[in-house]
This record gives sequence, C-alpha cells and structure tokens, in this order.
Amino acid sequence: MSTTTRSSKRQKTNDDLPYTLIYWPSIPGRGEHVRLAFEASGTPYSDISNESKDGINAVLAQISGENIGDEHNPPPLAPPVLKHGEDISISQTPNILLYLGPKLKLVPNIEEDPIGIYHVNALALTALDGLSNETHDTHHPIATGDYYEAQKPEALKKAKDYRANRLPKFLEYFERVLRGDASQGGEYLYGGQLTYADLVFFQCLDGVSFAFPKCTAKLRESGDYDRAFALYDRIKGLEKVKAYLESDRRQKYSQGIYRHYPELDEDGEGDA
Amino acid sequence: MSTTTRSSKRQKTNDDLPYTLIYWPSIPGRGEHVRLAFEASGTPYSDISNESKDGINAVLAQISGENIGDEHNPPPLAPPVLKHGEDISISQTPNILLYLGPKLKLVPNIEEDPIGIYHVNALALTALDGLSNETHDTHHPIATGDYYEAQKPEALKKAKDYRANRLPKFLEYFERVLRGDASQGGEYLYGGQLTYADLVFFQCLDGVSFAFPKCTAKLRESGDYDRAFALYDRIKGLEKVKAYLESDRRQKYSQGIYRHYPELDEDGEGDA
Repeated sequence: MSTTTRSSKRQKTNDDLPYTLIYWPSIPGRGEHVRLAFEASGTPYSDISNESKDGINAVLAQISGENIGDEHNPPPLAPPVLKHGEDISISQTPNILLYLGPKLKLVPNIEEDPIGIYHVNALALTALDGLSNETHDTHHPIATGDYYEAQKPEALKKAKDYRANRLPKFLEYFERVLRGDASQGGEYLYGGQLTYADLVFFQCLDGVSFAFPKCTAKLRESGDYDRAFALYDRIKGLEKVKAYLESDRRQKYSQGIYRHYPELDEDGEGDA
Repeated sequence: MSTTTRSSKRQKTNDDLPYTLIYWPSIPGRGEHVRLAFEASGTPYSDISNESKDGINAVLAQISGENIGDEHNPPPLAPPVLKHGEDISISQTPNILLYLGPKLKLVPNIEEDPIGIYHVNALALTALDGLSNETHDTHHPIATGDYYEAQKPEALKKAKDYRANRLPKFLEYFERVLRGDASQGGEYLYGGQLTYADLVFFQCLDGVSFAFPKCTAKLRESGDYDRAFALYDRIKGLEKVKAYLESDRRQKYSQGIYRHYPELDEDGEGDA
C-alpha cells in the first residue's frame, strides 16, 4: 500500500469519539488502571464486559488465535484493549495510559513541559514492573498457565524474597521520587499535579495491600515510606476516586494479579 | 513552584543535542535496545561506560540511593538512562525508545499516521515482556538478587514451561502480527517500514537464540513461525545493523538477561 493511500485512510483522532474498555469481567486486573484514569478524570467510558453479559465475547474475539487485527491495528496479545471510536484499538496497559494521558489531562501540559509525559510513562512502567508484574509472580513463579497449588513451594520462596527485598526496594524508590525536586513538593510523583503515574502507583499499592496485608502494614509502620503511603492515601481520598471505589463499578480482588494467600504473607513460611 | 516558573525553565527539546547512553559496561542487556536504535538509524551517540573506564560512575550515580533526581528529572530505578543534552534524563527502556522513535524516524510519520507510534510501542512492550523479562526469569525465577545456583531446581521447571508454552506463545503472536494487514505485507511488524519494534523483536530473539539454541532451532525448523524468523533474519541483514553486529561496539552475551545454561535448554531436565 502506498503512503498516499495509507495517509488518506489514516485513523481519526477526534477526542470526542467514545471510549470502550475491553477487559475480563469481574476482576480489577490490569484493566483497573484504565478504569481509574477514566474515573479520576470524570471521563465517560464503556466497560463492555462488566456492562453486558455477552461483552466477554469482545474480549475473546480480541485474543483469539484467529485475530490478525485489521488494516490499522495489529492484534493485541492480551487485554486490556482500548477502543476509541470504531477504528482505533490500542493494547498494552501502559500504552493505553500513554494514549489517554494528554486527552484526559493526566500528564503535564505538553506545551509547558514537553518531556513530562516521558517521566510519567517511566514512573508508570516502573510501578507496573515492580508492584504488579512481580506481585503476580509471587503466586505464579513457575508457570503462568498452571495452578497456584502446583507451584506453592516455589511461591513461598518467591514471596519471601518479595516481602524482604523487592517490595521494600520499589517503595524506597517511589519515596525517593517523592523527595525529589521533579515532584515539586512530593504531593504527587511528578510536576506537582495528578498524573496517571499516581493512579497506577495507587492501584498497585492497593492490590499489594490486599495480597500482603501484614507485610504492607509493617512497611507502613516502619516510617521509612511515609511519602509513598501518604500519596496512596491522598489518591484514595480524591473525590472522584473515592466515589468510584465506593461504587459497584469497582470490581473486587479475587483470583487475578492480586491474591491473598495468607501463607505468602507470613514470615518464616518461605524458609528453605 | 508556579506553573509560570516551571514553564520558563522547561527542558529544551532541540534534536541536535548529543545523546548519551548510561548503561552497564560489557553486556548487551536492556541498553542494547537503545544502542540498536542509534546504530540502525546511523545516529551518533556516546555509550559512556563502554567508552571510558570511569564511565561506570555515571551508572552508579544514577542508581545511587542518594539520587533524588533534579528539578526536571525524577531519579531512575535502574539503567539504561538516556541523557539528551545536559538537562534531559529519560529512563525505562521502552520509554527511551518511545522518546527516540520520532527523532530517529523509527516510528511512522506522525502527520501521516498519528496512531502508529502507539502500535509500535505496544509491540515493543510485548516483545520486552515475553522475550526479555520472561527469558530472564527462567534463570532467576525466585530471587533476582540471588545466584542462579541457589534457584536452579526452580529454574529447570520455569525453563521447561518457557520452552513448551511461553516462547511458542510469543512467537505465534508475532507471526500473527506479521500476517495481519497492519503490517502491510509482513516485511516489518507495523506499517510496512522499519520501526523500533522490529529492532526490539530482533534483539530479544537474538538473545533467546543465545540462551536456548536447541529450543530456538527446533521452533525455527517447525515452520510455524516462518514470518517471525524471516523478520529476525531481515533485521540482522540490514546494512547498518550488520556492520554494528560485526563491530567491537556490540557486546557479547554473558551473565546478563540472556544466559546460556545448557541444562535449561534440554527437554526432560525440568520434569518434576
């Protein structure tokens, strides 16, 4: 296809097009980061598989081995997928947030701070790496497609390292970000304003607190991460976030990324 | 700090500023994705810790627990860090590539295809998730900070699942992307042109081929992933990439993300 043809068929970017989130029903999961961006910014969106019984078919169609995408959009590996209007399909959680950031004003104004969006993206990627992916791996250290029970001895070891080393490491990092001048006072992670990095950090730490309540409480009480926990509390208390968390649109944690297995939260259990 | 003050001190974005890669010396690692973007596009850059003996101090200063960043830049969690001129520091591999993409013409022209950069970003994120992070975890399934030998039984199990399920899953995905219309013919992953997603895919599969030579050869011979392996060969044969791979600027694999432990590449070893 020539560049000219492609150009004439290019995807529209009208911000008034409707937003549809395509994600598994009934769990927060990685889709929750997208929901929170919409909710915190008061942006209308459709959460297709939680709003209609056959909405899950939209998820299954996206991840089908038959799906090769279309003229504009490569197929996604996994949900969440964001549809913007009919023509635009965007996958990968941090990528969806990057796309939404300027539209939902959840990144610094690009005219005033053209580099800010990259800093926000880096912070969101780091939170997802350390506080979402690694947290998931505590209950599935060996095989993502197998049961927890089939890899429980390994999970106990992995969770021990997570509690002792990884979780403190990531909290210390975000504490340091909040101490730094680029946060402009430590109220938010970057630039003195709410960005989607704050929302991602909140959601990750909320999930970690569900999965590892004892460990998280101990880390909070240590006083070593006061800025990080204050940020968590601040986001949780934002008017629109609070209303959302109290609504039935907020899905409950269960058997997703964040799972509460008491044995993974106990000191000593993972000793070899 | 007021918005006005910040605005007046905003970071410059002159594309003529020099690029400096701050990454560990002597290993390809995640820094390799940044090197390949520069090399494939013929863009001058400084690879500070491979070019001077005390360049490693730049890495250590970045990841020090004392580093709280500066007025503009949050601290990074880990290298690679890209410096652009004196004022701009960008961290997180896919974020660095996102920043460089338009400047190095490794994403579709934004005027002609404003959504293309998000598709490229999603493809790069997916390759890094599945073919870099998961590959690393085969030799470190329990504790990133501990020795391989301390987690070898678990590594054998993880590697078995990786060879049987995860690696084929990701190759099948990229094969499907190449079959799709958005690739515009399957020569490259997206839009009929070389993007950084192709370079990331190449580097990941190159590392996987080093770590799992038998498994990779078997998958290639199966014929199920012909487009994916053809893309690998195509990128490897690009004039500038080829010259780079043959130069002494290309670091050798050793004890980084991609490690060749023959026992992890053998069927049967991971049986429980």
